[in-house]
Amino acid sequence: MSNPILVEVLRGALVESRHCGAVALVDAGGRLVLGLGDVERPIFPRSAVKALQALALVESGAADRFGFTDEELALACSSHGGEREHVATAQRMLERLGLDVAALDCGAHWPIHQPSAMALARSGGAPSALHNNCSGKHAGFLCLACALGVETRGYVEASHPVQREVRAVLESVSGAALPDDCRGVDGCSVPTWATPLKNLALAFARFATGQGISPARADAAARLRAVCAAHPWHVAGTGRFCTEVMAAFGARVFVKDGGEAIFCGALPEAGLGIAVKCDDGAIRAAEVMTAAVIVRFGALSGAEQAAMERFVHPTLRNWNGIAIGVMRPTEALMPRGT
Amino acid sequence: MSNPILVEVLRGALVESRHCGAVALVDAGGRLVLGLGDVERPIFPRSAVKALQALALVESGAADRFGFTDEELALACSSHGGEREHVATAQRMLERLGLDVAALDCGAHWPIHQPSAMALARSGGAPSALHNNCSGKHAGFLCLACALGVETRGYVEASHPVQREVRAVLESVSGAALPDDCRGVDGCSVPTWATPLKNLALAFARFATGQGISPARADAAARLRAVCAAHPWHVAGTGRFCTEVMAAFGARVFVKDGGEAIFCGALPEAGLGIAVKCDDGAIRAAEVMTAAVIVRFGALSGAEQAAMERFVHPTLRNWNGIAIGVMRPTEALMPRGT
Repeated sequence: MSNPILVEVLRGALVESRHCGAVALVDAGGRLVLGLGDVERPIFPRSAVKALQALALVESGAADRFGFTDEELALACSSHGGEREHVATAQRMLERLGLDVAALDCGAHWPIHQPSAMALARSGGAPSALHNNCSGKHAGFLCLACALGVETRGYVEASHPVQREVRAVLESVSGAALPDDCRGVDGCSVPTWATPLKNLALAFARFATGQGISPARADAAARLRAVCAAHPWHVAGTGRFCTEVMAAFGARVFVKDGGEAIFCGALPEAGLGIAVKCDDGAIRAAEVMTAAVIVRFGALSGAEQAAMERFVHPTLRNWNGIAIGVMRPTEALMPRGT
Repeated sequence: MSNPILVEVLRGALVESRHCGAVALVDAGGRLVLGLGDVERPIFPRSAVKALQALALVESGAADRFGFTDEELALACSSHGGEREHVATAQRMLERLGLDVAALDCGAHWPIHQPSAMALARSGGAPSALHNNCSGKHAGFLCLACALGVETRGYVEASHPVQREVRAVLESVSGAALPDDCRGVDGCSVPTWATPLKNLALAFARFATGQGISPARADAAARLRAVCAAHPWHVAGTGRFCTEVMAAFGARVFVKDGGEAIFCGALPEAGLGIAVKCDDGAIRAAEVMTAAVIVRFGALSGAEQAAMERFVHPTLRNWNGIAIGVMRPTEALMPRGT
């Protein structure tokens, strides 16, 4: 069954498209503060849990042992745009490990950031695995493998010690069992385990507060939140939603997108974790859903709310730059008066 | 309210995303042969009605007066990929009118066809309005303006004689009133009028059969169907759904996509018009919906059905080329045994 319509896309005065979705806000005690749609349904978290996938990298001491900088840790949590400095940062992470691009099993694609893709083409270049939006995360996986003293080859396989470690962390912080029949293969070939939305929100409430997890893991979570807050450009890139929102709010808002329009986030001051899934996989709508939740529960000032308006009600423009429509949250997502 | 779920997107064994939609199949007498979801709701037809927008170009004699070739007429019905020969064809159409790229008001964007975009960047070039997927249609509008003897400037405005002519044709063939409050601005700045899905299907049943329209318009429709069937590459481009389907079936299937995931089509042998809209604007799902309808109602041979399988159940691959999932029509779209 469909989840409720949470976002409408208008052209002129008429609704042209509609996006259904589910939203879970949970506190660190596991209380569901907001539940829209089916929050029990297992959802592949994809890249939205990169910061959780990076917990073992930090709490094991692997990142420090190899001297990863704050920017490099942020890139380990990123779906970056393949801009020049993203690529250079990933390259430096590999160099610290004594590895090169050949060690990456994420596959190659043109930079997500279109001007960077065009600049790469213009220079006669071609994309490598370093341009893959997941190259920072993969460099983090390779770092963990090196620290564990295991073979780096095959690090994307579910049976590899790195992915077994990551799975154990995900099960622990989400409180959800992640059996093999919940496993899919992600865009970059690592496993992704379908997890109920409310458990993803719980995981991020714990990530936000350090409650319900070990002190070492809480420290790792706090450090990852801090590096992402300090270096939001490394988490996504120029003009991207996650970067813009974290640049605006610093440590007050953590937010990360994933393939097929999932978002995970944290509001540390409110002690809340957020998980959002747009049914149909449209990132544009998941961004509106996430922005609306931040405005409703982020205890923003009037000026901050106004600054979020371009994400809650984004203007749509055509090839001539003419404003042809707008997106808006429905009553179900944003009741009148909020 | 949401329309029914018509397409599911699986990652491994689990459904990751879901697409709702509406489908109308109508015969030239106006009988609804298949109606899924709300087929009365007005929908912006966008580029899916380019062949109807081109009717006036042909039936007025404008296309012949300026010597448009079959390929050029097909391009007038196209959302092309901006491949080299698409661009050259659009350029020739303008030259026949004594105009150049400056006359086009569609705006510029990088070619949709990624290798062509990258090749353009590699050559140090930048996109012009000729690369816009709508440049062929706009060249057609300019041709009509020249034939009418009116100012070409402002040809994208609803009040311009060209768009008034187009609107009159759309109202006539669809049988739907298209008042000003149903008008939106399209991606290329021309008007698009929201029309109930069943009326769009009726328009294409008439386009398919010539029934219910004047002999001159029926001739124009037959000619446009023939040029698209003969030159499907000019209607979309390399690897594109419309091109592949029309290349496979020739004059037996006409199909055209539009922005926000609308498809219009015709099955001339069955005398049916097709209109499909995926609620959320995802073209990938609208393609599956359209393919399923063609398989159900196109009277295909077993071999033809098998050839359509890659469109009805497309395999999804990740950056490493690994098959990670599949899309499939739901029972509602494709009942068991069809």
